[in-house]
This record gives sequence, C-alpha cells and structure tokens, in this order.
Amino acid sequence: MGTPIEAVEAYLEDTAEARLAELQEFIRIPTVGVLSEHAPDVRAGAEWLAERMGAIGLEHVDVSDTAGHPVVYGDWLHAPDAPTVIVYGHYDVQPVDPLELWVRPPFEPRIEGGRIYGRGVADDKGQVHLHLWAARAWLEATGRLPLNVRYVIEGEEEAGSPNFRAWLEANTERLGADLIVVSDTGFYEGNLPALTVALRGNTYLQVDVRGSRQDLHSGSFGGMVQNPAVALARIIASLKDGEGRITVPGFYDDWQEPSAAIRRQFSEMPFDESAFAAGIESPGLFGEPGWNPLERKGLRPTLDVCGMWSGFQGEGTKTIIPSTAHAKLSCRLSPGMDPGLAFERVRAAIMAVEVPGVSVEVTQLDSMWPFVVSPEHPAAVTAMGCLREVFGTDPWYVYEGGSIGAVASFDAVLGVPAVLLGFTNPDDQAHSPNESLVLANYEGGARTVARYWQALARD
Amino acid sequence: MGTPIEAVEAYLEDTAEARLAELQEFIRIPTVGVLSEHAPDVRAGAEWLAERMGAIGLEHVDVSDTAGHPVVYGDWLHAPDAPTVIVYGHYDVQPVDPLELWVRPPFEPRIEGGRIYGRGVADDKGQVHLHLWAARAWLEATGRLPLNVRYVIEGEEEAGSPNFRAWLEANTERLGADLIVVSDTGFYEGNLPALTVALRGNTYLQVDVRGSRQDLHSGSFGGMVQNPAVALARIIASLKDGEGRITVPGFYDDWQEPSAAIRRQFSEMPFDESAFAAGIESPGLFGEPGWNPLERKGLRPTLDVCGMWSGFQGEGTKTIIPSTAHAKLSCRLSPGMDPGLAFERVRAAIMAVEVPGVSVEVTQLDSMWPFVVSPEHPAAVTAMGCLREVFGTDPWYVYEGGSIGAVASFDAVLGVPAVLLGFTNPDDQAHSPNESLVLANYEGGARTVARYWQALARD
Repeated sequence: MGTPIEAVEAYLEDTAEARLAELQEFIRIPTVGVLSEHAPDVRAGAEWLAERMGAIGLEHVDVSDTAGHPVVYGDWLHAPDAPTVIVYGHYDVQPVDPLELWVRPPFEPRIEGGRIYGRGVADDKGQVHLHLWAARAWLEATGRLPLNVRYVIEGEEEAGSPNFRAWLEANTERLGADLIVVSDTGFYEGNLPALTVALRGNTYLQVDVRGSRQDLHSGSFGGMVQNPAVALARIIASLKDGEGRITVPGFYDDWQEPSAAIRRQFSEMPFDESAFAAGIESPGLFGEPGWNPLERKGLRPTLDVCGMWSGFQGEGTKTIIPSTAHAKLSCRLSPGMDPGLAFERVRAAIMAVEVPGVSVEVTQLDSMWPFVVSPEHPAAVTAMGCLREVFGTDPWYVYEGGSIGAVASFDAVLGVPAVLLGFTNPDDQAHSPNESLVLANYEGGARTVARYWQALARD
Repeated sequence: MGTPIEAVEAYLEDTAEARLAELQEFIRIPTVGVLSEHAPDVRAGAEWLAERMGAIGLEHVDVSDTAGHPVVYGDWLHAPDAPTVIVYGHYDVQPVDPLELWVRPPFEPRIEGGRIYGRGVADDKGQVHLHLWAARAWLEATGRLPLNVRYVIEGEEEAGSPNFRAWLEANTERLGADLIVVSDTGFYEGNLPALTVALRGNTYLQVDVRGSRQDLHSGSFGGMVQNPAVALARIIASLKDGEGRITVPGFYDDWQEPSAAIRRQFSEMPFDESAFAAGIESPGLFGEPGWNPLERKGLRPTLDVCGMWSGFQGEGTKTIIPSTAHAKLSCRLSPGMDPGLAFERVRAAIMAVEVPGVSVEVTQLDSMWPFVVSPEHPAAVTAMGCLREVFGTDPWYVYEGGSIGAVASFDAVLGVPAVLLGFTNPDDQAHSPNESLVLANYEGGARTVARYWQALARD
C-alpha cells in the first residue's frame, strides 16, 4: 500500500476526472458578490460549498451570516498532538464585464490547452476547491488528516472584505490556530512556483483644495485668484522628486531592511524589464534610483495619485478657473511602516506647502498594515520544500506589492503567522475576460497542500 | 425747437413707455441660440429685429444667412461727409438653467425697482434695442442721422461666434467703416460709467500625459512605473512659481507697458479687495507680486488650469495608477502678445520638463489675439465725453480680462479701430438667473449713443 502520502496521491490520481467535473459545477454558480441581482447565486454558492464540506467529512459546517454575504466554515479537529491550520479562501467572484470579450460565456467552463476557463476559476474557486480535494484525499485514503484544519471561506473578498474582520472578531472562540494558510495568490512570472511572504500595507487619502464658491470666468477673474488646480499640482509635485523618491519628511524612517538573502534573491529573480514594459504598453519603467523594479514593487513604499480632478473635462474649451481641485493618493507601505503615521507625515507635508488663496483639506479614506512573515519561519521553509517536491524546481519568495484585506484582518484579530500559498498562473486573467487556471497548477496545488499538511505535522 | 440733440432727447423722453413695451416684446422671443429646439425662435428674433430696422427707416435690411444663425444687417448711409460706424451686438441669449432660481419666468419680462428683468435684457437685447431707438429718435426728430451707421447684429455670440468671422469675410464689400462700436459690455463696479478699450487674448491648450495602456493596480505595479498624474502635476507646477509668476521662458517678453495715465488710473480705481473676495467666497485674492488685482486682471497675462483629470474620481477608494492624465490650460494674453508664440513658448516649457516613463502631448485648442485701442484715440476720448455728459460723472477706462470673439474677428478682417461702449450694470446677472438691466442705464445708453453719433460727426 505504501506510505500515507503515496495513498493520498494515488487517490488524487484516480479522481482527476471527477474533481474537474465538480470544479465546473462550482464555476457554474455565478457568485458575483458585488452585484445585488446575484445575491441568490452567492447564497447558492455558499450552500454548495457547505454541502461539499459536509460530504467529505468536515465537521461544524456552517453557512455563517455576516452583515453581507456569509462565511462558510468547516473543520476537522481530530489530531490533538498536531498543529491547527486555518485555510482562507473566497467563493465570490468578480463581475464579468466586458462580456463580449469572453470567448465562451463566463459561467460555462471549458477545458482547452491544459487550462480550465471560467469566471473565478483562478480567483479563487479553483484554489478553494483544490483544498477540499486535498482534505478529501487524506480522509478517503487514510481516514484522517495529519493535522487540524479550519476552513474559512468568505463571500466578500472581491468587495474588499468589508465584513470579514467583524466576523473574525465575533468568531475568535472557534478560530484557535497556529498558522493561517491563505490560498488566494499565485506563481511568479513564467509560472514559476512561489510563496508569498509579504504584502504591502496602504494608506489612502484624499486632498481637497477649495478656492471660490463656484467656477470663475478665466478672463474676468484670471490673475486675481489662486487656481485650485495649480495649487493641487504644486502640492502633488512637492511630495516626490523628479527621480521618483518620496520627499515627505520622515516617510522612509520606519522602513525595514530585508535580510541579505532576500536582497540577493531580488537581484537574481528573472525579470525582463523591456518585455514587462511592452506587456503593459508603457513607454518604460520608472522609479526610485538604486532599486530594481521588483525591489521597488516588493521592498519599497510608494506614493501614487489614483485619481485627480478639477474643473472642465469635456471636449473643446471652457474658460474657467475651477472652484475646487481634488486628488486621491495611495501610499503602499513596506513591512515596518505604520499606516497611521504615514498618513500623518503625508498630511503634514501637504499642509506645509504654501498655497495662498485656497483652503486645503486632507482626509484618510483607508488604512491597512503591511504584512510579512520571515522567509526563515518554519511554516514558510516547509511550504517552499513542498512546492519544490511537487513542481520539481526551486520556488521563489514573493514580496507582493498589493494588500489583502483578509490577511491584515487575521493579523489584527488573531495575531497568528500566515503564509500565502497560492497556485494561479500569472497570466490567469483574474478580474478580466477569459480567466483561466492551468490544470497542472490546480493538480499540483492539491498535491502540495496534501504534502504540506503532513510536513507541518512533522515539523 | 432748440438744437437737433435737444429734439432727439425730447423724442426719447416722450417715447419711454413705448420703448419699454417694445423691449419687452423683444425679450419674449426666446432666442436661445445654443439649444436646437429654439432654432425657430432664434429665426423669429432675427426677423423681428429686421422688421423693426425697416420700420424705423434703416435700409438694405437683410436677415443674412451663415452656417449657423443669421446675422441681421441694416444701414443708413446718407451722410457722405461724415464717418461710418459699424454697430455690433447680438440677439441670441444664454440658456435659462437653472430655471427654478428665476423669480419670474425668464421670457416674461417684468419691471421692478428701477430695473427690467428677463433673459437677455442686459446681454445683449437691451443694448441692441437702445441703439435702434437712438437711431429712431434722430430719424423721427430730425429726419437724418449725423453719420453713417451699419448695424451688424449676430445670433451666435453666446456660442462663441463660430461663423461670424466667415460672415465678415464674405461681406467686406458692405462693411466699409471708420469705427466699430461694440455694445456688449458694461459699467464698472458700483455701476460707474466706463468705456472698455482693451480685451485680453487667449491661447488655450490641452496637455495629455500617457503611461501604460490601461490603469494599473497600484499595489502590483506601484513603484515600477511613472504615475501620469504625478508627471502632470510636475509639469503644471513648473509653469508658475509659488507667488503666481509665470516661469515659462520668454512668456512676458512681448508684454507692452501701458501708458503712465493708464497705470495711474489703475492705481486710483475704487476696489475693495476683501469685499470682492467675500463676494466670490474666496479665502483671499492672490497673484503676481507687484501688481494690484485690477492690474493683474486688466494689464497682465495669466496661465490657468481650466480643467484637469486622471484616473478615479468616484467616492471612496480605488487603488490604481491611472493610464493617462490630462489638463486644459488657458493663457490670457495682454496687448502685444501673440497667441501662437505664447502657445509655442508654453509648449516648449512643458516638453522641457523631465518626466521619464510617460509620453506628453500638447495641443492648441483655441487662439485669440488681444485687442486694444489707445485711450487717447479720438473715438475713445469722444465716447468718454458723451458718457460724462449723460451720466454726470467721470467714466473709467476698462481693460477687460476676457476676450470677445467678434472683436477679434473685426480686428482681423476689417482692421478698423473699435470701442466697446456698453451700458450694463455690473450686477446684471448675465448668464445667470434673474438677469436684469437698470432702466437708467438703458435710457442713458440711448442718449449716450445719440450724442456719440453727433460728436463723432463733428470730430
């Protein structure tokens, strides 16, 4: 019969067809969380998932209400001497617009060229589903899991997880755990296996510049008053230098130097700068001197304008001095940086710009702490080993430039280490038409998770 | 019987009631030129005007087609030894929105508190109408005019006179003249009589900054690429210093120093800066050091952002690096400044800003030459004298900050001097609800014009 993991892998081998059929069933439920007309579908998706959890032998299965869409919970807790892991994923999917760009309808999955296509197949239903089958394989092949697992699959990730933190706070008594495994990320460029160990935080703010009560005629008033749009441009231009350094006093003070090993990895990661620029049809990459593009994205904080508006935006000409000018700014924050402090520093820098004749207001709209787990953490090292075994190549550590609200919430509420073990291919078209998941990633993902449970239990 | 002018003024005195009744008839025709549903009304307004011109004894009356609304022409040319004047005005009016703010329906004129209210009464029907009655009074009281007059009353001024220049070019043979009198301006603050002798020109341009093909996730790409909105802010901020001086190389080179008399007048004009700022609910006036607000508006050129837009403008947060950023800029140009040259200078300054990682394009959208007639020109001095006689106080020379397309067209096509002899009160609410014209300005306007014809004939 061989070792338990051999039995688990044999089970996965034998059931590939049934698994893929069941995944397609999951894809067919249009769980578009942000569109209210899909609310019954979202509920149906949650119930489908709960039914599947119960069917494979998970316990305490619960479609757990929130102020929005429910969280689906289920666990298996019969390994008293082994650690407990929370698996996080989500069953809601992005809207499908523009529908006309889909080769096949988004909720009619198809398999072609080694991929499965359909809305949500990569983000995140395929990943939730491979977790279910890793557990099912263990339970069917050996009657047990190597450790304790709590599944926490939410339904509002695509809406920014607005109710997830409150749900965690209300459910801490059933969320005791040693590790959180988030499966909502993916592989590195070229589809190289990777483990995400850091996410940047964010502080998001709005700047409102106000001049006169209403737009003024640029002839009858031009020269007499400050122009709010010019004042806003002065403010924004003052926050960075011409080479892309942020000039806000103190902004970089709490930035933490990553380890020499991570710095070395970042200098060695394969990255074709001109191909990357061509891929996004950019005239060329740009940023803070002294750091390569991957470092600027993964290791360094940013200050970006996300939106800016003032006055007339139509075709042709309208000769006004706008009454107001506005900008939305996002600062991505590296590990060590406090979003509240970053906001105060940016705010102070903005208010220090001398722009007579207008009033300036700065408001924080969002705030998220950065997240990092040490690449030397045993849970990370073990995950890297499982990826290497299954995919046959050395995986990369990824410092992701974005934020994941749920990870920040886990960190804030439970304070438990987390690893982001995700399996999507970088060209998955998540959030875009013709989303797909490479079948080898899906199958390899199920096997990696199966091995990871055993390896964690042995650590 | 007295002198001819006494007879003319007696006629005006005796006919005040009939004149006001006829003006109300004119107001009742809703000649909103920019709204296509009013096209029949605009035509009716032109025909009403032509009928009135014919009735008082003008000749060659013509509702003359253009690519848009017609120009109404009529003349009286029986003073072979006297000069010929073109009178310019317009019979089209602004739209009436927001309708709910009108105390009475905009096309139902009412007389109250020494004013007549209604859309277009100040801008410009009342002024056109007082010209008709000045001529009528001369013709009825004396059988002739003191000089030759050609009336050119257009129907597209509120649309920016898009077809007026072409009409002038097609009609030069019937437009021989020594002077153009534009009656589409008004008195100075506090309703002090004034003659406008200068208008600023304009060069209007759009700046388009382009980064990647589409908006990028500010986490996944932040730090790797130039932000087009930040680049645009750098560009705009580079064009002016913190005190409001334009820093575009050469921008002020062609600016012409006004005469000492004009500089003295500008320093003496009554102007309550804090009341003015309070009136537009501005935190305070602002502009180029060394010049007072009236000088900055009348004598100095400007560079203003009229509109600016990039990325996300909705409520809340969207974490993107915008694909593009755009701005519309208007430079008001003082006498002596060439709009084409000003555009080239601003364009060169914009293109000189180093913003790697984006492309920058600058397009000219509009261009208008400044206009000035010397305050010492006999036609200006004579007009000032007539204003003083009728209104009993020393009038001011006004350097207007805006542009009037028709004046620029007259200048370009006919090259004849012009004075802007207008009679509206500064609180006329032109373009806004409850537009009004002070009856004393209307009546005094008719008398001023009647005297001006005689005075010009004697010059």
